[in-house]
Amino acid sequence: MAFVHRVGFVILLFMVSYCMCKRYEPTWESIDSRPIPGWYDEAKVGIFIHWGVFSVPSFGSEWFWCYWRDKKLRPYVDFMNKNYPPGFTYADFGPMFTAEFFNPKQWVDIFASSGAKYIVLTTKHHEGFTLWGSKNSWNWNAVDVGPRRDLVGELATALRSDSNLHLGLYHSLFEWFHPLFREDKANAYKTNYFPTTKALPELYDLINTYKPEVLWSDGDGNAPATYWNSTGFLAWLYNDSPVKDFVVTNDRWGLGTICNHGGYYTCADRYNPGHLLKHKWENCMTIDQKSWGYRREAVLSDYLSTADIIKTLVETVSCGGNLLVNVGPTHDGRIAPIFEERLREMGQWLKVNGEAIYNSTAWRAQNDTITPALWYTFRPQEKAIYAITLSWPSNGSIILGEPKVSQGQTQVALLGYKQLKWEPVAAGGLRVYMPQLSPSEMPCSWAWTLKLTGAS
Amino acid sequence: MAFVHRVGFVILLFMVSYCMCKRYEPTWESIDSRPIPGWYDEAKVGIFIHWGVFSVPSFGSEWFWCYWRDKKLRPYVDFMNKNYPPGFTYADFGPMFTAEFFNPKQWVDIFASSGAKYIVLTTKHHEGFTLWGSKNSWNWNAVDVGPRRDLVGELATALRSDSNLHLGLYHSLFEWFHPLFREDKANAYKTNYFPTTKALPELYDLINTYKPEVLWSDGDGNAPATYWNSTGFLAWLYNDSPVKDFVVTNDRWGLGTICNHGGYYTCADRYNPGHLLKHKWENCMTIDQKSWGYRREAVLSDYLSTADIIKTLVETVSCGGNLLVNVGPTHDGRIAPIFEERLREMGQWLKVNGEAIYNSTAWRAQNDTITPALWYTFRPQEKAIYAITLSWPSNGSIILGEPKVSQGQTQVALLGYKQLKWEPVAAGGLRVYMPQLSPSEMPCSWAWTLKLTGAS
Amino acid sequence: MAFVHRVGFVILLFMVSYCMCKRYEPTWESIDSRPIPGWYDEAKVGIFIHWGVFSVPSFGSEWFWCYWRDKKLRPYVDFMNKNYPPGFTYADFGPMFTAEFFNPKQWVDIFASSGAKYIVLTTKHHEGFTLWGSKNSWNWNAVDVGPRRDLVGELATALRSDSNLHLGLYHSLFEWFHPLFREDKANAYKTNYFPTTKALPELYDLINTYKPEVLWSDGDGNAPATYWNSTGFLAWLYNDSPVKDFVVTNDRWGLGTICNHGGYYTCADRYNPGHLLKHKWENCMTIDQKSWGYRREAVLSDYLSTADIIKTLVETVSCGGNLLVNVGPTHDGRIAPIFEERLREMGQWLKVNGEAIYNSTAWRAQNDTITPALWYTFRPQEKAIYAITLSWPSNGSIILGEPKVSQGQTQVALLGYKQLKWEPVAAGGLRVYMPQLSPSEMPCSWAWTLKLTGAS
Amino acid sequence: MAFVHRVGFVILLFMVSYCMCKRYEPTWESIDSRPIPGWYDEAKVGIFIHWGVFSVPSFGSEWFWCYWRDKKLRPYVDFMNKNYPPGFTYADFGPMFTAEFFNPKQWVDIFASSGAKYIVLTTKHHEGFTLWGSKNSWNWNAVDVGPRRDLVGELATALRSDSNLHLGLYHSLFEWFHPLFREDKANAYKTNYFPTTKALPELYDLINTYKPEVLWSDGDGNAPATYWNSTGFLAWLYNDSPVKDFVVTNDRWGLGTICNHGGYYTCADRYNPGHLLKHKWENCMTIDQKSWGYRREAVLSDYLSTADIIKTLVETVSCGGNLLVNVGPTHDGRIAPIFEERLREMGQWLKVNGEAIYNSTAWRAQNDTITPALWYTFRPQEKAIYAITLSWPSNGSIILGEPKVSQGQTQVALLGYKQLKWEPVAAGGLRVYMPQLSPSEMPCSWAWTLKLTGAS
Repeated sequence: MAFVHRVGFVILLFMVSYCMCKRYEPTWESIDSRPIPGWYDEAKVGIFIHWGVFSVPSFGSEWFWCYWRDKKLRPYVDFMNKNYPPGFTYADFGPMFTAEFFNPKQWVDIFASSGAKYIVLTTKHHEGFTLWGSKNSWNWNAVDVGPRRDLVGELATALRSDSNLHLGLYHSLFEWFHPLFREDKANAYKTNYFPTTKALPELYDLINTYKPEVLWSDGDGNAPATYWNSTGFLAWLYNDSPVKDFVVTNDRWGLGTICNHGGYYTCADRYNPGHLLKHKWENCMTIDQKSWGYRREAVLSDYLSTADIIKTLVETVSCGGNLLVNVGPTHDGRIAPIFEERLREMGQWLKVNGEAIYNSTAWRAQNDTITPALWYTFRPQEKAIYAITLSWPSNGSIILGEPKVSQGQTQVALLGYKQLKWEPVAAGGLRVYMPQLSPSEMPCSWAWTLKLTGAS
Repeated sequence: MAFVHRVGFVILLFMVSYCMCKRYEPTWESIDSRPIPGWYDEAKVGIFIHWGVFSVPSFGSEWFWCYWRDKKLRPYVDFMNKNYPPGFTYADFGPMFTAEFFNPKQWVDIFASSGAKYIVLTTKHHEGFTLWGSKNSWNWNAVDVGPRRDLVGELATALRSDSNLHLGLYHSLFEWFHPLFREDKANAYKTNYFPTTKALPELYDLINTYKPEVLWSDGDGNAPATYWNSTGFLAWLYNDSPVKDFVVTNDRWGLGTICNHGGYYTCADRYNPGHLLKHKWENCMTIDQKSWGYRREAVLSDYLSTADIIKTLVETVSCGGNLLVNVGPTHDGRIAPIFEERLREMGQWLKVNGEAIYNSTAWRAQNDTITPALWYTFRPQEKAIYAITLSWPSNGSIILGEPKVSQGQTQVALLGYKQLKWEPVAAGGLRVYMPQLSPSEMPCSWAWTLKLTGAS
Repeated sequence: MAFVHRVGFVILLFMVSYCMCKRYEPTWESIDSRPIPGWYDEAKVGIFIHWGVFSVPSFGSEWFWCYWRDKKLRPYVDFMNKNYPPGFTYADFGPMFTAEFFNPKQWVDIFASSGAKYIVLTTKHHEGFTLWGSKNSWNWNAVDVGPRRDLVGELATALRSDSNLHLGLYHSLFEWFHPLFREDKANAYKTNYFPTTKALPELYDLINTYKPEVLWSDGDGNAPATYWNSTGFLAWLYNDSPVKDFVVTNDRWGLGTICNHGGYYTCADRYNPGHLLKHKWENCMTIDQKSWGYRREAVLSDYLSTADIIKTLVETVSCGGNLLVNVGPTHDGRIAPIFEERLREMGQWLKVNGEAIYNSTAWRAQNDTITPALWYTFRPQEKAIYAITLSWPSNGSIILGEPKVSQGQTQVALLGYKQLKWEPVAAGGLRVYMPQLSPSEMPCSWAWTLKLTGAS
Repeated sequence: MAFVHRVGFVILLFMVSYCMCKRYEPTWESIDSRPIPGWYDEAKVGIFIHWGVFSVPSFGSEWFWCYWRDKKLRPYVDFMNKNYPPGFTYADFGPMFTAEFFNPKQWVDIFASSGAKYIVLTTKHHEGFTLWGSKNSWNWNAVDVGPRRDLVGELATALRSDSNLHLGLYHSLFEWFHPLFREDKANAYKTNYFPTTKALPELYDLINTYKPEVLWSDGDGNAPATYWNSTGFLAWLYNDSPVKDFVVTNDRWGLGTICNHGGYYTCADRYNPGHLLKHKWENCMTIDQKSWGYRREAVLSDYLSTADIIKTLVETVSCGGNLLVNVGPTHDGRIAPIFEERLREMGQWLKVNGEAIYNSTAWRAQNDTITPALWYTFRPQEKAIYAITLSWPSNGSIILGEPKVSQGQTQVALLGYKQLKWEPVAAGGLRVYMPQLSPSEMPCSWAWTLKLTGAS
């Protein structure tokens, strides 16, 4: 069980407006001093989208190229030998990235229906292929090759015209096979041909062109932040860029920065610590448990169920994190119905239980001491405590061990239903009596929220 | 409400064993006199699989070729103009039918998990492409072109080694664009170049090679059964073929035979009359409501939910039909997870409720007079009546208006749970008290079966 | 040295007109009794065109498929392994046979410029792919697959509208991989599924549709003529077909017929006996010495020079044969400039020397006894003897040992120049004095014709 | 008629050895002061090779991309519309540049047989695709895409191991569609993103890696030499590069430099002034008169005959130029036989007449005043005058109006034959008596060289 000083968040929000005039230095100390714009903590749920040329072989992983050519992993090598002509290159997949079914309005409809408040799109993964027409990536971008469309721009436009979701852009610093990166690497990062002619120009271009609200950096390639000139770039981003007032970034800016420097922390893929962190963090995770990119060979059991996703969402938010749920579109631009189903079901749940998620903060306790799989959130304004249980009790009542209640003052309601009866428990906490509901009367599935007011 | 003389089914089953020695004449009178082998009525649930070269464009419908080239429907013409070079032919899709992910054992696992007892695979649709290495379809079959595998044989082998499911083969008589069929058609079916050199040799080959338990004929092309020599073929099938003792066929054998002659009746696609038929019938329907073949552009709302499927299953079986649930695999040999989920969930339901489905017959009433959306089935041996309700009552009890009950003798149980309390209702029938169950205690979702014994 | 009784040819021509009323029996005796229509012997030079799906790999030989898949010859297997994906089939080459540069008028211009009087096009080689839209070869013909054009029809139309050349169609009886042929073969040709459903319907179709003047049969597949029903077909061709009065055929109609039965004899590929034959014959040969189909890897030294071709032409015509010079067009429909150059140069030579070739017959001697590489032809009407020398004498004069001359009566001219001085030689024959000509005064290159009149 | 002071060439050669110690400044004055290394003037004949992605469509011109996309010329637009899917990009041609038949030893054999002394290969044309694995052209070079071979390196290696030919590398400064070039252009060449990150790094790489003897610069894109930093690069090339002692360059280094600055002058494509120039120059011309890159639609009449080529060679060398004869290999790596034939025939001529070409200089007169189509060259050491006539006289003798002869001293020989008789002509010059030669006695075809010694 963990506690948090909520006061910290309030101060932080105050600083955001206060500090707009401040200029940041290109040092981690200064960069780290910038408060994370408040909208991000309020949003809680985002959709991660891994899309690229790896969506063409659509086999194994979005690390396909690396596993095939660099690691020479057997399944990848066999897959290529079996299905492609000798000497077929990864670049040959480019023209097959057709995106002919890509309908950005349809995507936005799905994302909005999921209850997410922002998206993060891989504008360029480690393969180096840019989903926009980068001048620094000639003939290896989605405008010159394959879709022949500005995928980033089209999605950004649809998002902004048809929804209130925030736009996030993922960008990989390094590229596995870029010859200039490899040259710099061979030079032990004493030269910086690659950052100066590729990574940095593209970062500036992305920010200036699409004005994202999230910049999700990844892939330091084991090179230090000094090689990438990360603090220099971030100082510009925070001081002078067109998004300086609201942009949010993460912590993947060079060897050793992860979980240490930058904006919010990601720490690791599928990071879900189970306790409160002092720093704002995000749990980025995948519906297909084995891959971020679309895998054609994925079977049903590889996909998280909606119950699994709701469980992770509840745990993450209770511990102060945001959840970034990943889907992998296909090479022809579709979000497979199995992903759509998961997202829409998460949205159904959030429609009923969103009050306990959005704009919430972590409560003093994250999960209950007595009833397992029961997680708390809190809304400071309303002083409402939300207890989210992942299972409906069989015996008709549920004990909440953490809240301090008082008869006559404390009220308990089931979100999507109505007030419930409760009684204090001698050892502390309360017993809540659950209603008898037929399946069609249930407000939702997967998890249920008890809202406590007049408690602490 | 409809009634059926169950005795008819018993006589029919008796005739099956009796009539094995009889020889059929090539007339409809004689062909129609053959009883349908009993295993088929007992099986109740099958999986239909539409797979072929149409799975490559995977757009709109398995009638893609016809809609594009013959009907010149706008969406198909536009799709081709937009995505393919001028003059691209349907035959050019052949090499792209790769099936590299086709794993017949995996398919069989999914089919078996669905609770189905037979499958029906399109060995050749109206496009003429055969999924086996037909000698009469050189370079337009799955062994010469595309997969370079005997898809029919591989699936048959896996089915027989890994499951108890029966093998059914779909075969289209006519082919939209076969030049010899078109020549015969231009000759008003006075010539029969096509049946003698293509359709009939392939039918014989299919039966002799794969020995299917179901032969699902389709596509008469508006030509009479005499053109196809259907009665001649069926007489051979019933008298002399290696499957004569157990093979089941349907009713699509020439203009006017549908719902009139042959084996069981299909009458129409997605046929679901809602009342009992005198002749054994089958409701073949699709999970993707708009297509039999896989459509890449299908979105979640195009797919029937599991609840929809269970509802159709219950209605169909109550009215004496079998349900043939269609899935469309992809060009690369996968059954999409959304299909897999539907099928496995149907299997979960059947695991609890299969007693009310398999080996059942129609009861004297098909659905209840008082409670809507409640359907009956019957097991003669056990004299058990099954009342399947598509909704769980909110008020704690449910009235069955049809059964005749007697206190002390009649017993009511919820399948997957236990005995329930009930009381007779003055106007006839009974009121059953449903238990109070939390979500995790529910025996199943979507529909629930009350089993009545000692009632009539 | 060989002699011929010219009277035989005259009788033969007489019979042609006489026998038009006669009906042929389906026996070799009767079929062989038909005289060869006179136009063919007069024509002397034809162009053979090997074009088909083998023009796509365009490697090694037009027997590519057989060498690769059946004989498994190393270079072919290696070529496929190196350049194509695993499991690539020969049928996959079909869509790549694009013919986008095929311009039949351009081809006809080249053929006409060569001095040839007929062409022979491979309408179907042993691969079974038909260059016209055969109904019996669905999806394996040039209208359904690849060019999507009636290549036979387009060339026939251009030939007839833009030239006086005769149309010849090559047709292979057997097909290496046709499953029905292989089945018949496995049945030791006791069944005839293949001839009845494929080879014969296509032969009738070719004759009725395109009305060719030459039918060049090939590829008996080691099956007897009875299997192919060759005499039956030929009886129809000679008695009742629309081309009965002028069609010419060859001798490849079943095992053992070559050089024995049918129309003119071909005996062997590149047959050039060097002496006179009693039966009309044809020397079919290739400019690319190693292949009939286009080979991309062919280098200059693989091509016969124009001098080589003229030499072969002269030898062949002197011995009573026709020359059929083969070119292999490319998969995209071009006749490579190296072929065009050879053909146009042959035409330049024939423009000067055609008098000695067309309508000529063999003379009593074929080549000279004294001067080597000097060949004779004869024109009965003019009683002109033509002595064609393959080399220009260095010493200023040339001796002809064969002709019988008489002073005052015999005249000698150099074709394309003028009368020459000559004197009799004691031992028989004459010495002709060649003029002193600068390169630009030469009437032609490669070979020169002396025309003798008043000699015998 | 034109005269030249031969002494100039001697001084120039002297300076070459003398000036090796001198360092060049990055100014045109200094750069232009460098003498052209002597080997180049001695070589006289080179082979130009245009090969690249344009060899894939192989239609119209090596400017295909520009004509199609930028100029939107009708034939190119139609060609694409007819043969490729909508939205097909030029980059999509990359993987089709297969070069599977590329055999550098075979190429070198052909080049050497032509009598050429150097080759010039397009390592990068205006399309930007590099035939070597440039790090600055990732995924748009022959190692990453298409051939997956270092085409420059393989040809260089074969050339150096199997021949004495010199290696020349063609390099286009600008690239039609490179986004950074277009950006610089939009900035009126005030920015130089493109030269600094693409053009210059690649130029240095080419020189350092392949150490060519010729650097053939092209394509200034209407940008000034200052934009390209041409003088800076050339100063390095002449002072410090590994090829500084022997490398030869041309004059295409920025707007206005052509025919003015740099190394030898090219002035224009197919430049053939017909009179002597003061500066060393080169006539780069094509065998296919309409294109530098291979055109599939080229017909025989589009190709220069061997006689045409010999004529151009003779004219060019007489006027002090070098001849650079262009061939366009195919996308699959072949030199078409028609090109091979032309080159080998040029080699046959040079084998007889090379003495008049290699190491020759222009004589005081370039062509004769009396006999047309007769051109002179000169060898200072031997003091031999070569008179090359493009036609063999019909009347048995030829008059040379220019040489000053003296009985008893002057000797005249026909190269490849022997001494000829001659007599002085009153008006000046001499009459040479040509021998009477049969075709097989001719030393060569197309043009004949009279060698005069003891004349002036």
